[in-house]
Amino acid sequence: MNLENSEVAIRTIIEARSCALRARDVDGMMADVADDVVNYDVVDPLRRQGFSSSRERAAAWVSTFDGEVSLEIRDLRLEVDGDVAFSSGLSHVTGKQKTGTELDMWFRTTLGFRRNAGRWLIVHEHDSVPFNPETGQPSIGLKP
Amino acid sequence: MNLENSEVAIRTIIEARSCALRARDVDGMMADVADDVVNYDVVDPLRRQGFSSSRERAAAWVSTFDGEVSLEIRDLRLEVDGDVAFSSGLSHVTGKQKTGTELDMWFRTTLGFRRNAGRWLIVHEHDSVPFNPETGQPSIGLKP
Repeated sequence: MNLENSEVAIRTIIEARSCALRARDVDGMMADVADDVVNYDVVDPLRRQGFSSSRERAAAWVSTFDGEVSLEIRDLRLEVDGDVAFSSGLSHVTGKQKTGTELDMWFRTTLGFRRNAGRWLIVHEHDSVPFNPETGQPSIGLKP
Repeated sequence: MNLENSEVAIRTIIEARSCALRARDVDGMMADVADDVVNYDVVDPLRRQGFSSSRERAAAWVSTFDGEVSLEIRDLRLEVDGDVAFSSGLSHVTGKQKTGTELDMWFRTTLGFRRNAGRWLIVHEHDSVPFNPETGQPSIGLKP
C-alpha cells in the first residue's frame, strides 16, 4: 500500500539520521534535507533558512562531541498523506563533549516532510527545550 | 479545487486562533484542537498530551494578561496534501501582563493538522524560543 510505503520511507529517514549523528557524519545527517528547509533549532538564532545554514549548524554541533553520540527517539508520532507528512517525538541525546561535560539532554523534535518527484525530504525541523518561567532558565535537565 | 479549499480552511483556523487570543477567549483558542493533541510549549513541561492539558495551559497563559493581547504571525509556511498538513511561522505576541510587564516576544510555532470526517483539527503544536548557549539563558528578546 502506498501510504505504508511512505511511512516506511519516512521512518527510514528518521533512523538514518540517528545513525549518521551517532557516527558524527554531517553529510549523512543532511542527506534527506531540502534546499529550502526552515530550521528552528534548540539554540539561537530564532530561525535558519536553507540547507547551507542548517548544515553549518549541524557541523558545529557535531564538532562539540568527543567520540560517539547516541540519539534515542521516544513517542514518535507520524502523520502522512499524499505528499505531505510530519512527525513529533522526544529526542534523547547523550555523549561526551570536548569540554569534558557528559551531555544527557531531552528535547522536542518536530519534522515536516514533503515528497518531490517520488522522494521524501525534510522541509522543516523544529527542535527545542522549554524554559522554566519561575527560574527563567532553559530546562535542559527534563526527562519524560 | 480541493487543495485550495484545504489551505483556506487551515489559514482560517490559524487566523481564528489569533483573534481568539486577542479576545482572551480560551474556548475559541481551543475550538479546532483535537482530543489527542500533543503539545510542546514555550515553557515546561517537556510535553503535554491531550486536549484538557493543552486547554489548562492556554487558560493559565491567557490569565497572565491584563487587557488585549496581540498576536502577529510572520513567514507563515503551509504544506497540505490529502488529510495531512503542517505550518511553520514566527509568532509575535504583545500585551500587558498583570505583573505590569509589557510582554513583547517572538517565538517559533509549528502546527500539525489532520482532517477527520471533513474537518481539519490541530493534532500537534510546537512553540518555543531558542536559548543562548553562551549565556545559558532563553532568548526571549530575539526579533526576526
